[in-house]
Amino acid sequence: MKSGVSSFQTDGAIMIRHGVVILVSLLWFATAEASPCSINGLPLVKNTSELPQHNYGRSGLSHTTIAGSVFHGMKEIEVWLQTFAPGSRTPIHRHSCEQVFVVLKGQGTLYLAPSSHSKYPGNPQEFHIFPNSTFHIPVNDVHQVWNTGKHEDLQVLVVISRPPVKVFMYDDWSMPHTASKLKFPYYWDEKYYQTSMWKDEL
Amino acid sequence: MKSGVSSFQTDGAIMIRHGVVILVSLLWFATAEASPCSINGLPLVKNTSELPQHNYGRSGLSHTTIAGSVFHGMKEIEVWLQTFAPGSRTPIHRHSCEQVFVVLKGQGTLYLAPSSHSKYPGNPQEFHIFPNSTFHIPVNDVHQVWNTGKHEDLQVLVVISRPPVKVFMYDDWSMPHTASKLKFPYYWDEKYYQTSMWKDEL
Repeated sequence: MKSGVSSFQTDGAIMIRHGVVILVSLLWFATAEASPCSINGLPLVKNTSELPQHNYGRSGLSHTTIAGSVFHGMKEIEVWLQTFAPGSRTPIHRHSCEQVFVVLKGQGTLYLAPSSHSKYPGNPQEFHIFPNSTFHIPVNDVHQVWNTGKHEDLQVLVVISRPPVKVFMYDDWSMPHTASKLKFPYYWDEKYYQTSMWKDEL
Repeated sequence: MKSGVSSFQTDGAIMIRHGVVILVSLLWFATAEASPCSINGLPLVKNTSELPQHNYGRSGLSHTTIAGSVFHGMKEIEVWLQTFAPGSRTPIHRHSCEQVFVVLKGQGTLYLAPSSHSKYPGNPQEFHIFPNSTFHIPVNDVHQVWNTGKHEDLQVLVVISRPPVKVFMYDDWSMPHTASKLKFPYYWDEKYYQTSMWKDEL
């Protein structure tokens, strides 16, 4: 009997606690929605060094989404801060959005195969990238950014349009475009991506 | 007679020179179009410190378009590097595009009046902005960025969608939205803007 009362009291306490949690959550979401001070519960002005950073299973990478689609509700632009340890690199890939890089520190190489009527990217052109340099990737051009330095990290600020990014990846520069593999949601969007969103876009 | 021959020779020389200039220009444009190495004759990888910077008649401002619509052919995103001397600021303004700021150095204040059903912006909220902070301006929210520091420059990287930017400017926070003035093309786009472009968008 004692256990029953105890159980009832426990159940009641749990129900009250759940009710309070739901109420607080509703108030919190309402406030978050109504106020420009926060987006998804984050403050409007954020310290980039306090935002989540992760390698998402890619050795040598540190990625931070500074302003993102799936996490911060951006619809037209997305901004990333990325650091590549010496020797690390992006996959060989393409995407049908605009992309701008600004190199904050370090050096490296941009490999870029311009769009063509070939069935595969072919030998890429090589461009030296350096601190305070900037470049953009023409829509759908296959490319790769590589920290070809030996000692220093390569840190870049990256801007894309049409988030979240839909990436087609290549094993090498001679892989046919038709064999490239779609990676969507991309590494850093996987955790927050909701299946119901954007599925009509692909 | 001598002057006539001389004149003919001069005219001929001018015609030949014009022909060469046109031919070189055509070849140059053709190369610029065909090669990913250059956009509008600029190299693909650019040193941001070598890009044009100007105050565009606004005291204390230094603006560089890192990747731009009217100059570099961007269609979906545009990136600016801006420095505000102590005490200098943007106008009070709004625009119907997304905008993200990353503060590279310095401190200041973001004034932001959330969209509402009021006829005018009203008293803005104030946010402290600082090195490595980031924030975005919700579409159409009236705002102003101000270097409220006394000694240090405020340097920001700014990203917008839907370039070139169409800015509605306010004299003060109590000016009715309907009285705000469209500034288009904006200061840094004026020189390169062609009247025929984008006019259907407004």
